[in-house]
Amino acid sequence: MKSETDFVKFLEKIKTFDKNIIKGIGDDCAVLKFHPKHKYVVTTDTSLLGPHFTEDYTPEEIGHKSLATNISDIAAMGCTPKYALFALTLPKMSAIWINRFFKGVTKLLKKHEISIIGGDTTKGPMSVSITLIGEQKYKILRRDKAKINDDIYVTGNIGSARAALLLKRGSEGHNYFRKHLVNPIPRVNIGLEISKFASSCIDISDGLAKDLKNIAISSRKGFIVDIDKIPIKPRFNFYVSDKLRETCILGGGEDYELCFTCNKKYSRIINTLSSKYKIKITKIGTICKSGFSYRIHGKNYIPKVSGYDHFQS
Amino acid sequence: MKSETDFVKFLEKIKTFDKNIIKGIGDDCAVLKFHPKHKYVVTTDTSLLGPHFTEDYTPEEIGHKSLATNISDIAAMGCTPKYALFALTLPKMSAIWINRFFKGVTKLLKKHEISIIGGDTTKGPMSVSITLIGEQKYKILRRDKAKINDDIYVTGNIGSARAALLLKRGSEGHNYFRKHLVNPIPRVNIGLEISKFASSCIDISDGLAKDLKNIAISSRKGFIVDIDKIPIKPRFNFYVSDKLRETCILGGGEDYELCFTCNKKYSRIINTLSSKYKIKITKIGTICKSGFSYRIHGKNYIPKVSGYDHFQS
Repeated sequence: MKSETDFVKFLEKIKTFDKNIIKGIGDDCAVLKFHPKHKYVVTTDTSLLGPHFTEDYTPEEIGHKSLATNISDIAAMGCTPKYALFALTLPKMSAIWINRFFKGVTKLLKKHEISIIGGDTTKGPMSVSITLIGEQKYKILRRDKAKINDDIYVTGNIGSARAALLLKRGSEGHNYFRKHLVNPIPRVNIGLEISKFASSCIDISDGLAKDLKNIAISSRKGFIVDIDKIPIKPRFNFYVSDKLRETCILGGGEDYELCFTCNKKYSRIINTLSSKYKIKITKIGTICKSGFSYRIHGKNYIPKVSGYDHFQS
Repeated sequence: MKSETDFVKFLEKIKTFDKNIIKGIGDDCAVLKFHPKHKYVVTTDTSLLGPHFTEDYTPEEIGHKSLATNISDIAAMGCTPKYALFALTLPKMSAIWINRFFKGVTKLLKKHEISIIGGDTTKGPMSVSITLIGEQKYKILRRDKAKINDDIYVTGNIGSARAALLLKRGSEGHNYFRKHLVNPIPRVNIGLEISKFASSCIDISDGLAKDLKNIAISSRKGFIVDIDKIPIKPRFNFYVSDKLRETCILGGGEDYELCFTCNKKYSRIINTLSSKYKIKITKIGTICKSGFSYRIHGKNYIPKVSGYDHFQS
């Protein structure tokens, strides 16, 4: 067992006992059939000082980001986030810190009408574990239903979070990208809308290359991606050196944008959604029978990076 | 904000948005009405090296205990544990450690037919956050419905876990109590059975004095407890010094026994349950109008300890 993927594979082998489990381990969320008409999705994620936030984050930003990453998992399933449980480990019980942390949290709670239903605090090195339960509205999106010839889309811009992480803290470039790293916006509206027609969806938390590969492997398909079509911020090429560009765009995690696939006939609807929600939605490639292929200006290209794994450097 | 209680009070004030929340923050679990006939309960808890387990625990024991403490919260609500999500933070991804950890976990999963539906791993100081979802079978037990003149009962023996913690590791006394600290047995069967008639219930995780006080305060009642009736292991008085006895019995957390209240008329049923499940169930006191009173051999007594709080020493 060397990676998170191995860990998930390990968990998948443990027996489940229940007919209400529509989907267990292996997607952004588990899917449970608590109700004959509504399915529910559940996800859990831990945020730590180091891999997920750094000393320069304000408590508000830590609160926002820890919850936003969980909401993003629900968005990737095309569901509505509903109930949150917080397990906080803190070095000391500081009223000021906790108040500020929950100020960041509460803004997102209000925006999405999420209720906190449980909390636990423990003394130790800072860590934030959040469990979030979401409810089905239309269809539930999964990562394993991409079809051959489907278009591949991404929301927003890609690579900004990683660019902020790689550029020197306090520099002009870092400041240009920082809000994407620190205050990601989970794409709940888009997730709900595309759940009506998309064939698969994932949120880009571990880097586009790795997350798209997850869709392809789960769906037993391949993909062709045009790297030059991947949307980036206007001044991305100005601030990010040639050497780091690929790392940010393909290997860069924490963008929390959605990557989804759908039949070509939905391209007009996607344009309408993009205008309605004022969020860029860009076609970056096509699902094919097999192989993970990249092109730059129409020419085949073999990337050097894959994605982010917490247990690999 | 100085304690876990303050933290829970703080969370209680954050607005909830949903009519399906029967009970939010403030009990062993939240109660959700996902289904017109079945309610569900959800709990989350973090176990850490230091407060919850020490270097001498085997990975199997850490696995067992982390899950057992969550199951105990479901048992205290009189429900059946069903679905678990694991968020593990580990210093390194060791296949051997993870295999052994889940060996401890799997034994409990099988016994209670619990399914793992989600997992997340992160690199950092070891911590185990588990979210457990349970299902209503009969009635859902809460801590806020104790009535005047109700009897107060506890399952099993009290103070053993704290005794193990206080006695020198490796000593005869420590070894006598160790299994209660390391391998607590959540009382799911008893929880389900008493849910048919008990007025309130809590699991003894923070010490009998504090947990019973929680029942009393939530129910706006008082209690009288006969300290000499609190059940202890046969050789408890032999191994535990006079000085430490009260700390173990009243202040000792982590016993994960149930403390519940019910009308006096159920005493015969309780005897039957005790025989059926071969678990001691002992009457230790009575709910009264107000005041938290203790007696020893009929004489009033004021205890020196209260209970365990992660942020107070």
